[in-house]
Amino acid sequence: MIIILRADATDEQIEHVLERIERLGLTAHLSRGTYRTVIGIIGDEAKIAVAPLQAIPAVAQVVPVLPPFKLASAEAHPKPSIIEVGHVKFGGGYVGMIAGPCTVESREQMDAIGSAIRDGGANILRGGAFKPRTSPYSFQGLGEDGLKILRDTGNKYGMPVVTEIIDPRHIDLIHEYVDMFQIGARNMQNFVLLTEVGRTTKPILLKRGMSATVKDLLMSAEYILSQGNPNVILCERGIKGFDPETRNLFDVAAVPAVKAISHLPIIVDPSHATGRLDLIPCCALAGVAAGSDGVHIEVHHCPEEALSDGQQSLRPEQYAQLAGQIRDLVTLFDKKISPVGEASQ
Amino acid sequence: MIIILRADATDEQIEHVLERIERLGLTAHLSRGTYRTVIGIIGDEAKIAVAPLQAIPAVAQVVPVLPPFKLASAEAHPKPSIIEVGHVKFGGGYVGMIAGPCTVESREQMDAIGSAIRDGGANILRGGAFKPRTSPYSFQGLGEDGLKILRDTGNKYGMPVVTEIIDPRHIDLIHEYVDMFQIGARNMQNFVLLTEVGRTTKPILLKRGMSATVKDLLMSAEYILSQGNPNVILCERGIKGFDPETRNLFDVAAVPAVKAISHLPIIVDPSHATGRLDLIPCCALAGVAAGSDGVHIEVHHCPEEALSDGQQSLRPEQYAQLAGQIRDLVTLFDKKISPVGEASQ
Amino acid sequence: MIIILRADATDEQIEHVLERIERLGLTAHLSRGTYRTVIGIIGDEAKIAVAPLQAIPAVAQVVPVLPPFKLASAEAHPKPSIIEVGHVKFGGGYVGMIAGPCTVESREQMDAIGSAIRDGGANILRGGAFKPRTSPYSFQGLGEDGLKILRDTGNKYGMPVVTEIIDPRHIDLIHEYVDMFQIGARNMQNFVLLTEVGRTTKPILLKRGMSATVKDLLMSAEYILSQGNPNVILCERGIKGFDPETRNLFDVAAVPAVKAISHLPIIVDPSHATGRLDLIPCCALAGVAAGSDGVHIEVHHCPEEALSDGQQSLRPEQYAQLAGQIRDLVTLFDKKISPVGEASQ
Amino acid sequence: MIIILRADATDEQIEHVLERIERLGLTAHLSRGTYRTVIGIIGDEAKIAVAPLQAIPAVAQVVPVLPPFKLASAEAHPKPSIIEVGHVKFGGGYVGMIAGPCTVESREQMDAIGSAIRDGGANILRGGAFKPRTSPYSFQGLGEDGLKILRDTGNKYGMPVVTEIIDPRHIDLIHEYVDMFQIGARNMQNFVLLTEVGRTTKPILLKRGMSATVKDLLMSAEYILSQGNPNVILCERGIKGFDPETRNLFDVAAVPAVKAISHLPIIVDPSHATGRLDLIPCCALAGVAAGSDGVHIEVHHCPEEALSDGQQSLRPEQYAQLAGQIRDLVTLFDKKISPVGEASQ
Repeated sequence: MIIILRADATDEQIEHVLERIERLGLTAHLSRGTYRTVIGIIGDEAKIAVAPLQAIPAVAQVVPVLPPFKLASAEAHPKPSIIEVGHVKFGGGYVGMIAGPCTVESREQMDAIGSAIRDGGANILRGGAFKPRTSPYSFQGLGEDGLKILRDTGNKYGMPVVTEIIDPRHIDLIHEYVDMFQIGARNMQNFVLLTEVGRTTKPILLKRGMSATVKDLLMSAEYILSQGNPNVILCERGIKGFDPETRNLFDVAAVPAVKAISHLPIIVDPSHATGRLDLIPCCALAGVAAGSDGVHIEVHHCPEEALSDGQQSLRPEQYAQLAGQIRDLVTLFDKKISPVGEASQ
Repeated sequence: MIIILRADATDEQIEHVLERIERLGLTAHLSRGTYRTVIGIIGDEAKIAVAPLQAIPAVAQVVPVLPPFKLASAEAHPKPSIIEVGHVKFGGGYVGMIAGPCTVESREQMDAIGSAIRDGGANILRGGAFKPRTSPYSFQGLGEDGLKILRDTGNKYGMPVVTEIIDPRHIDLIHEYVDMFQIGARNMQNFVLLTEVGRTTKPILLKRGMSATVKDLLMSAEYILSQGNPNVILCERGIKGFDPETRNLFDVAAVPAVKAISHLPIIVDPSHATGRLDLIPCCALAGVAAGSDGVHIEVHHCPEEALSDGQQSLRPEQYAQLAGQIRDLVTLFDKKISPVGEASQ
Repeated sequence: MIIILRADATDEQIEHVLERIERLGLTAHLSRGTYRTVIGIIGDEAKIAVAPLQAIPAVAQVVPVLPPFKLASAEAHPKPSIIEVGHVKFGGGYVGMIAGPCTVESREQMDAIGSAIRDGGANILRGGAFKPRTSPYSFQGLGEDGLKILRDTGNKYGMPVVTEIIDPRHIDLIHEYVDMFQIGARNMQNFVLLTEVGRTTKPILLKRGMSATVKDLLMSAEYILSQGNPNVILCERGIKGFDPETRNLFDVAAVPAVKAISHLPIIVDPSHATGRLDLIPCCALAGVAAGSDGVHIEVHHCPEEALSDGQQSLRPEQYAQLAGQIRDLVTLFDKKISPVGEASQ
Repeated sequence: MIIILRADATDEQIEHVLERIERLGLTAHLSRGTYRTVIGIIGDEAKIAVAPLQAIPAVAQVVPVLPPFKLASAEAHPKPSIIEVGHVKFGGGYVGMIAGPCTVESREQMDAIGSAIRDGGANILRGGAFKPRTSPYSFQGLGEDGLKILRDTGNKYGMPVVTEIIDPRHIDLIHEYVDMFQIGARNMQNFVLLTEVGRTTKPILLKRGMSATVKDLLMSAEYILSQGNPNVILCERGIKGFDPETRNLFDVAAVPAVKAISHLPIIVDPSHATGRLDLIPCCALAGVAAGSDGVHIEVHHCPEEALSDGQQSLRPEQYAQLAGQIRDLVTLFDKKISPVGEASQ
């Protein structure tokens, strides 16, 4: 940590800063420049994260030298992690293919979609049972019935399943049915939920919040890792932007930016990132070309009848075409896609 | 709701859209312009919110005519609401003065701060007991012990108290101790929490999320109102911006923008909005001049020893000076500030 | 300037960085921390601004210690500057009142508006003659005829006049007619134009660009100052935001943020910042309460007939009411407004 | 155009709006819904762009139905345009490869870089002679000497050349030396410059401004097209974002978003978009996978000695490796890259 003092800092003030640092058991290293005095701090930076040095009047700026996350950092774990969801791998050269509807609506709907995407090229099935809807008047999901249908459909077509958790009181219920928990963008800094899923051992799909920086995303991953669960897959799904042309702003550079400082896999979700059918395939391919460890796509067999997100759901034949192009890219970049499993039902 | 069709929409496609609308029990009103065909929908817009008309191929754009919230809207309730927190009023000409430390640290700290801000001009005491910290390694709050200290200090100095809730499982515990629940910015779209506090009758201080539009904020208020709790106070506390000069971007225009479409009171929190001691007073005054129904300020008797947010906490004497200036503005604009209450302990 | 090296920097790489610094005639100050090596640079930071130290492989981060502007900084000039436009003062306790239509449309229009705003409380008249329109098919202004009308109207009502310059080839023409040049938001980084107006001695109203940080704005001011013209008035007029509720995002905190690091006056323009009639008065008052040195308001005697910006133009009686409230605030804060001048025609 | 009236609009007000529309020679189509009255306008929307209907009190919202640009739209010109820069094609299946240093520094520098990138896979040479620097104290370019060196180097290695124009008074000078004008991001709404280059017939590389929407970019293209020059190539080079992790935010979705509504080619510039060496290759590949018609990369033979942008310049061997990967993608997507030309010197 480096402390830059104000131009008008007095000797007494400087002395005060040095004392505070030493009281924390750290060593201060004073350097008087031509225009500014700078103090370098030697020792464990974490000790002073809580000490609001910025509040001391003579301090102009505090510059941290280390990233605030540890377990998620590439320094702690230089090799890319491979996370397994059932038999399906993400990271370290493996590209996961997650697809399915926004919401589980019925057994028939899930069967139609599950069958189609398995044939189309997906290897993980998604579907919402408890939905975080922005309107209290919108359909909120089927709850446990939805979880059962999701599980059964996954079993029938040999695909592990993932669903979103929005309430810490649902942890045991959902744990029983799924292979991966999803933490949605709106809950990326719901620290209660992060702590709760961090106490399980199931993989967690952690979506980036709409106003989260790459480092904020990794801090939220650190919450999960710090509880003992190392199985975190990150997901770029669009951040807040100023152009109404797209629903969100797809930050494809987040893929290599995460990989530069973390070992965790990161996938892309162009369905939520763009919210537009005609942009999803291009952005999915862009994500894979940028090094994404997976692609998450919303698919519905009849988008205009979907109870949610119809406007951004690919039809099965559109998904199959896109999945074919993704496979070509994966081959070009010498990566692999795990096969679907055996039907277990 | 208005549906704008694509330039190349065929008669068959137009027919299909009309049928879908009629199946929903609504009346469609077709208008063929020189360059585009437009369909107006007459009837209850809410019926089609769930129908993803945008997913129909010939549809270029769907323009809602009504705001998606009802109970929070000025149309439903043209007169500004006055919300009472204990004996302290917000809205309809009343300006509330909330102050206190980020976190309850000890009985001594709360006593020093409570006494000072009461004398300085505050009428509501705040303090965190369960803290949503971005790092899992930071101090997470004193829990129930913090709630007790907060309650006792409020009683001693005649100020109702407010604290943040972050876990739906804490609802009964916190309910016992405080006069108002706070929903923090990171939980503005934690719909589980919104529903839970909506089932109580205590006032809710709802902070705007960092990537939330004014309408998103009002939709979250609608969640609470739709559960039966009409006592919502909104709070502008800075949104995500691109200039690192300030911690967040203080959107002062949100104050009149909310008042243009809603009856709910809205207050400002320049402490979190700017994160800089030297900007807080100016932004607090700006908020009041823009019509804010209250001011929320972090105060600490020794900011550099604070366990959190020290860099943005005013000292008691700084708060007293600011509160005096706020009172002058309140008088100039012919508004009122509720007095502090009797000590009840 | 401080250079933070990568964790894996070798001794050879460190040596290379030190050599580069010394070759530039500066002194390097090496500090090996527990986790990172840091190099402080002592001497004139400007010497190395051009040296892309960040391009050296072992370098993780370069942290400048000084602001990149000098003449605009509060360090160079601790007392707030007072800029005079004709007889009207801005800064150092003086609040300027600029008003007028977006565009000069006719002699009659300007007379109607000029007379009304003079009576309403303005002391500077604005009006566009060369307009930067986003559509090539929109009205582009009356050119020199517009300048003549503007000048004559200003003279008739005793108000200095300001107009926007968009082409460096217009400098002499416009110089002849106006008391202040305006550089619009879209040209804030048109360095050719900045240099050109910097060679005159007339005051410059420099509007903040929609994606400019406070420091970017001050760097553009520095361009003008570095050419020898010290008369720069900054203007906050809304930056790009994500909420379609308002046209732009009014960053009121920029007012105190500029004052914390610069001596230049800064005014607010809520007309362009919000683009909404119903928000302009609240935001104007917020700006003054935050310490603004002036208020810029678009006024039209018949907004729905205006050739541009009608939707955000106050009617004269609305302006007069707002100006009265501004005067009350100015009095409360112990500031002054220069009176209008004698008619010179 | 659709006009949505306020809920409280009176019959008299509605009548007034209808009159205004008819006075403009257009037909109004009134539709009274259950909750709101809506007016559709039939006829040439351009006629009312200048009429500020929004300024009429009873009007709640004005929704344009047509895009505000014509010549740039896909409706006017459904087939993708192919733009030729010298012998090098962009668009309609052709991918252009622009590379070179930020600034022309010397004949030796340009020769080293020109030779290397020609061998590496570029087919257009870039280099700045008049630089728009954010600091008045930074190196501003070699001017005409730089243009000569650029031209000669391009001739020697068979590559057409492009340079930025920042001053309308330079148009003839630069016209003499280059094959394509570049309009930089900071000048995207410098309408004087757009008009000036629109009067030539040389291709224009138009970079997206940092706060420009996709439609703003196309409106700026329309300025050039409306002057008679049809040869516009758009460029996505990063927009303003909130994450300091990257210099700008690379909006890869802008590539398919532009193609959905325009016939103009669009290329990507990951050098300026990310500002980070380690992210440039991934983002370049992402751009091509998303359908980009070209890639613009800054290359320097010795980045740490570069007079500008060293921190984001690839070394020649890094460029050659990236260009090879781009060629693989171009082949996979069945597109083509124009070969370099004969040396003409």
